[in-house]
Amino acid sequence: MSRQNRVVRLKRRPVGMASRDDFEIADEPVPQPGEGEFLVRIDYVSLDPAMRGWISPGRSYVPPVEIGAPMRAFAAGYVEASNHPDFTVGDAVAGLLGVQRYAVSKGTRVAKVDPAQAPLPRWIGGLGMPGQTAYFGLLEIGRPKPGDTVVVSAASGAVGSLVGQIARNMGCRAVGIAGGPQKCRYVVEELGFDAAVDYKAGHLDADLAAACPDGIDVYFENVGGEIFDTVLGRMNLFGRIPVCGMISMYNATEPPAPIRNIRSILVNRLTVRGFIVFDFQDRIAEANEALGRWHAEGRLKMREDVRQGGIDAFPDVLNELYTGGNLGKLVLAL
Amino acid sequence: MSRQNRVVRLKRRPVGMASRDDFEIADEPVPQPGEGEFLVRIDYVSLDPAMRGWISPGRSYVPPVEIGAPMRAFAAGYVEASNHPDFTVGDAVAGLLGVQRYAVSKGTRVAKVDPAQAPLPRWIGGLGMPGQTAYFGLLEIGRPKPGDTVVVSAASGAVGSLVGQIARNMGCRAVGIAGGPQKCRYVVEELGFDAAVDYKAGHLDADLAAACPDGIDVYFENVGGEIFDTVLGRMNLFGRIPVCGMISMYNATEPPAPIRNIRSILVNRLTVRGFIVFDFQDRIAEANEALGRWHAEGRLKMREDVRQGGIDAFPDVLNELYTGGNLGKLVLAL
Repeated sequence: MSRQNRVVRLKRRPVGMASRDDFEIADEPVPQPGEGEFLVRIDYVSLDPAMRGWISPGRSYVPPVEIGAPMRAFAAGYVEASNHPDFTVGDAVAGLLGVQRYAVSKGTRVAKVDPAQAPLPRWIGGLGMPGQTAYFGLLEIGRPKPGDTVVVSAASGAVGSLVGQIARNMGCRAVGIAGGPQKCRYVVEELGFDAAVDYKAGHLDADLAAACPDGIDVYFENVGGEIFDTVLGRMNLFGRIPVCGMISMYNATEPPAPIRNIRSILVNRLTVRGFIVFDFQDRIAEANEALGRWHAEGRLKMREDVRQGGIDAFPDVLNELYTGGNLGKLVLAL
Repeated sequence: MSRQNRVVRLKRRPVGMASRDDFEIADEPVPQPGEGEFLVRIDYVSLDPAMRGWISPGRSYVPPVEIGAPMRAFAAGYVEASNHPDFTVGDAVAGLLGVQRYAVSKGTRVAKVDPAQAPLPRWIGGLGMPGQTAYFGLLEIGRPKPGDTVVVSAASGAVGSLVGQIARNMGCRAVGIAGGPQKCRYVVEELGFDAAVDYKAGHLDADLAAACPDGIDVYFENVGGEIFDTVLGRMNLFGRIPVCGMISMYNATEPPAPIRNIRSILVNRLTVRGFIVFDFQDRIAEANEALGRWHAEGRLKMREDVRQGGIDAFPDVLNELYTGGNLGKLVLAL
C-alpha cells in the first residue's frame, strides 16, 4: 500500500481572486510523527473568509502563509498514529491542520472533539472557530442588551448565522443582511432571525430602515464596503460595531468606495472595534461551553455546506466564499 | 443710558462654509433675569469647531440651533444682576451663554470661574470645554500607557495642543499633525511635543513614519478625511482612536475621499470611538482639578488667539477655524 499525502501549497500571492494557478497541489509522502507529535488523517477542511488575508503579502492579523508552505486551514479528522500523551489513535480532532490529507501536529491549536455530540464538519464550523468568533465578537464587543436591535452582515454564513441566533438568545431583535431571497428566507425561517434584508435588491438603506424601526444598536461587521457605510448611517447613539471581517474588500484591486457616513462614529459616539478570535484565546473554553449547551438545547441551529471533490477542489471551493455561492458553513470533504 | 444687547441669531442653515448672510445680527433690549436667573455681561465668546455641526440640519450630538435662535456658544463674562442663590453680582462665569453681549441664565452649563487663577478667555479654552475634551478623550478612550506614541491632529488647536501635553505628562511620545511650519514649530518648541508633522508639506505618510518610528498607539482624531486615512495605515496592534472631531468634513459639499486603510481597524484590532465631552458630564470636576493643577504647575501651556471686532465679527472669525487661520484657542473679544 502506497499511502500518499496530497497537499495544497501556496505557489504565489494572488492578485484579486485566488486561482488554481496560485497553488501547487501534489502528492507527497505521508509525514511521520516525531516525539510528542501525532498524525491526523483529515476528512474535512474548513473554508474561511480569513484565508484570503492569510495568503496576502501585507501585514495581517497572523503572519502570511509562506510561499511553498502548505495552505493554512482549520480541518478535522482522526488520529492515525501518536507519540503524544494526550492524543490516542482513533481520537477525533479539529484545529489548524492545513489543506492536506495528512497532517502531523504537536497539539498546538488542535483539540479533541466528540463526534457523538455533533458531526465532524460542525467542529470546524459552529462549534469551532466560527462559533467562538460569533460568541466573543457579539457578547464582548457588541455587548447587546435585551431589546437591542442587532444587525449582522453575511447573515447566512458560518459566523453571521450564529451571531443572529445568539442575539435572539440574549433577548435582542436580530436582523440579517444576506444576498438573495433564498439566503434571506433561510435566515428568518430556519434560523429564527426577526427579519432579513437582501442587499442585492437594490434599496438596502430603505429596507434596513424598515427592518430596524428602532435603529441599530449593534452591527456585527463581516463585509465592509457599501454595506458598512449604509449601516453606519442607521446606528443609534452609543452603538457598537464589532469588526470581524470585511470580505467584500479581500479580493479588491480597486480603491474602496468613499464612506459617506464615517461622521456617524462621531455624531453617534459609536465604538468600532476590530477583533479576531485569537484575542480571546484564554477564554475559548467558556465559548465552547456556551455554544455546546445552546446547540444541545436546540437554540443554535447550524448548517454545513459540505462540498465533495477532495483536495484538488480547494481553490474553486474557496472562491465560492467570496462570490456568495455557499449557504451555511462551507466545508470541503476529502 | 440705553443699554442694548447685540445678538447673533441663526437666519438660515448654511451650505458649505457659513457666511455673514446666514446670521441676523441686531440690537435688542437687554433681557431681565427672572426668578432663579441671573444676567451676564459677556466679554469673550469661544469659537469651537463643533459650531458648524450645531447649525446643520442633520442629526448631531446636540439638537441643532433653531432658526431665529441666538447662536449657541461657550462664553465668559461677569454677573451684572442676579436672582439666583449661587451667583452674585461681580462673579466671573463661563459656560453656554451664546453669541451675544448679554445673556440670562439659570446656571445650566454655566460655572463660576476664578480670574485670579487664569484670565477669562482661558476658562472657555484650555480650562474649559476644550480642556475637558482633551482630558477625557485621551485618558478614557485613548488609554495611553507610558512609552506609547500618541498622535494628535489639529495639534496647535484648543484641544489638540492639550492632548499632546497631557500625553507627555503621562510619559508618552507626543506627535502633532498641524498645517504649516509656524504651527509645527509652535507645537514642538512652545508646547514641548516630541515631533510635529506638517500635513501641508505633501508627504504626510512618509513624515508620519519618520516621526513615529515605533508606529502609533493612540491617534486623537480631530480632522477626518485623508489625515485619518493616512494615520490608520500606521496604527499599531490594539491601537485606540478617540474620535473627537472631523473638522475637514464639516463644511464639505462633496462626498469624502475613499478611506483606503479602513481594513486597518480589523487587521490591527483597533478601537475607534466617537465621544463628546458631555458624555463625561458627571466627571467634569475630575478633569477641572487635573487641568487646573497641571496648569498651575506649568505642565500645561495654553495660548488664546483673541480677536477683536465685537459681536459683528463672529461669522468671519468662525470661519478661520475651518481655514486654519488661528494659532491657539480662538476667542472673540466683545
